[in-house]
Amino acid sequence: MIEVILAGGLGTRFWPMSRRDRPKQFLELDGERSMLERTVERLRSSPVHEHIVVLVDREHLETARALVPEADDLEYLIQPSMRETAPAVALSVLHSEMQFDDAPVGIFPADHVVEHPERFHRALADAERLAREGGIVTFGIEPTRAETGYGYIRRTNEPLGDSEREHRVYPVESFVEKPDRSTAQRYLESGDYLWNAGMSVFRPSVLFEEMRRQMSGSHARLEALREGLEHDNPERIAESYESMEAVSLDRGVLESADDLYVLGLDVGWSDIGHWAALSELGEADGEGNVIQGEGMLLESREATIVSEATDRTVVGVDLEDLVVVDMPDAVLVVPRHRAQRVRKVVDRLEGEGRDEVL
Amino acid sequence: MIEVILAGGLGTRFWPMSRRDRPKQFLELDGERSMLERTVERLRSSPVHEHIVVLVDREHLETARALVPEADDLEYLIQPSMRETAPAVALSVLHSEMQFDDAPVGIFPADHVVEHPERFHRALADAERLAREGGIVTFGIEPTRAETGYGYIRRTNEPLGDSEREHRVYPVESFVEKPDRSTAQRYLESGDYLWNAGMSVFRPSVLFEEMRRQMSGSHARLEALREGLEHDNPERIAESYESMEAVSLDRGVLESADDLYVLGLDVGWSDIGHWAALSELGEADGEGNVIQGEGMLLESREATIVSEATDRTVVGVDLEDLVVVDMPDAVLVVPRHRAQRVRKVVDRLEGEGRDEVL
Repeated sequence: MIEVILAGGLGTRFWPMSRRDRPKQFLELDGERSMLERTVERLRSSPVHEHIVVLVDREHLETARALVPEADDLEYLIQPSMRETAPAVALSVLHSEMQFDDAPVGIFPADHVVEHPERFHRALADAERLAREGGIVTFGIEPTRAETGYGYIRRTNEPLGDSEREHRVYPVESFVEKPDRSTAQRYLESGDYLWNAGMSVFRPSVLFEEMRRQMSGSHARLEALREGLEHDNPERIAESYESMEAVSLDRGVLESADDLYVLGLDVGWSDIGHWAALSELGEADGEGNVIQGEGMLLESREATIVSEATDRTVVGVDLEDLVVVDMPDAVLVVPRHRAQRVRKVVDRLEGEGRDEVL
Repeated sequence: MIEVILAGGLGTRFWPMSRRDRPKQFLELDGERSMLERTVERLRSSPVHEHIVVLVDREHLETARALVPEADDLEYLIQPSMRETAPAVALSVLHSEMQFDDAPVGIFPADHVVEHPERFHRALADAERLAREGGIVTFGIEPTRAETGYGYIRRTNEPLGDSEREHRVYPVESFVEKPDRSTAQRYLESGDYLWNAGMSVFRPSVLFEEMRRQMSGSHARLEALREGLEHDNPERIAESYESMEAVSLDRGVLESADDLYVLGLDVGWSDIGHWAALSELGEADGEGNVIQGEGMLLESREATIVSEATDRTVVGVDLEDLVVVDMPDAVLVVPRHRAQRVRKVVDRLEGEGRDEVL
């Protein structure tokens, strides 16, 4: 399998640790290794691994390279601009096809966590086999809470019969958007809905045929894009890329694709979407407190301290459900259950022209 | 009146702004002037002002002098050691008597706030007159909430008849310790209890007579203390000082004194006892938020940011009842209503030998 890692996102929700020049996927959120490094390791050690393509913005190429050097089995591909996932995937898959013909391609976010890589590897092997047979395989996570921050994939009731597989695979009934609280609760109770993990595997020919059918305008640009890639012509690539429809792969292609399957993953997955999810990296104490760096929590629970300012001590007293992030030039304090609002901070700082902390 | 300012306290409850080398009374809590400077200005501009004596630890003398230089009407007196207020007051009053004979002496904390100095000046004049006649005058604040953090003074029902006074003066019934919540509520409703503001005025001869009667052991040291002061002999002063009983002026002398009065102050007083009280310095916005220094609060209320780290931005999102203090080498986060617990942090840091942030 050719593994495409989408590492071109903004990743602003980990401000003030994430910055314009260092989005989430390049951060060491557990204080040890970056999300990108972990993703590469996870894919590289899989039995179906053949070659990795990391899609990245030009401005972050050096940051990424410093974390994960190019190698015989790993290369970088420049994303001409931010334009949702359908164009990004089309570009990457085209690039893959030019080297590896119609070998199955897997699409993976650069910033997710998987606690059980061996189980994940077996799921990749299952997905790769199904993709060889012409299927499009998406990955779904068995929900454990009424999460409103994810899209869901509704599966049909009958799994494909194949006793070899560790993870069950179902034909997809439909994709659904992020639900409200009560809908999410209903999804959780029904058992028919899985969290959309944003990963998928398919042959290039299958993707391009679906694009031809559903996104004919974008599909018509593929030839020019191919020429741009062949002649290493960034202007040509950018021009073709920017005339493709800015839509997600899910909405543009997968939702209405034929032969679409969802593989139910049980691998300790998390997208670590915001500061509150840091406790899912397995670092919380008995009170649910997480401390990274130089910090002290007294009489606190469900509190998080992240300090990258090595010359400073962060002390919390009587805190509950709170995140404190201490960086050399900025300090953020936000309730854990509101941590997804950090995006607002970034918007506000942008609005005020506070470029020095963005 | 000779005004004694007690500036020898530890003042740790404003950690991490307050430090061993910079207790609360030397801090610019409003970002402008230190508590000590404000206290000196307030007393110096009073119509009964004659001479100020600032009692201070030797190790903080230079810090204090840098804020408030010595002058014809202001001098520093070294407090040999931390030993409660009775010995501190005895030493200061003795020092005053040696220069100004039996002129009334006022005792004032260095770290309180008074919003209406003119009214305070008239109260000082009232107190000075009553002290000349031989009384001991304490200052009480009409309670506005069931505060458990202050001691109270219970007054008798009949004020002294004197139509000239702006503030009423009552004979004291008794001193009471910090009450629990329900007792404080009862005090508030009864109208007979005033917050003990820790200020008093009396003639030296009156204080020493009460000491002779109630603290005969300490009184017996006064002669040696006087000789130490006369010959500028620090060892002699320290030796006498340290053999005096370590007790508060209230408990050692005032509680059981004759001719004891309480003057009911209505001057916008606050002891600014901890971070939560910063909003009483009149800097809160409509949502009760206080920001000092470089900070931003989004969708927050009753939140406080104090930043002395000029190269850093502090951002709070969705905060309520929270204090964030950002210093170059330490960050503190604590709920406003728990701000008095900061003392625990200092204890803990001491226990762990973290001298670099103490």
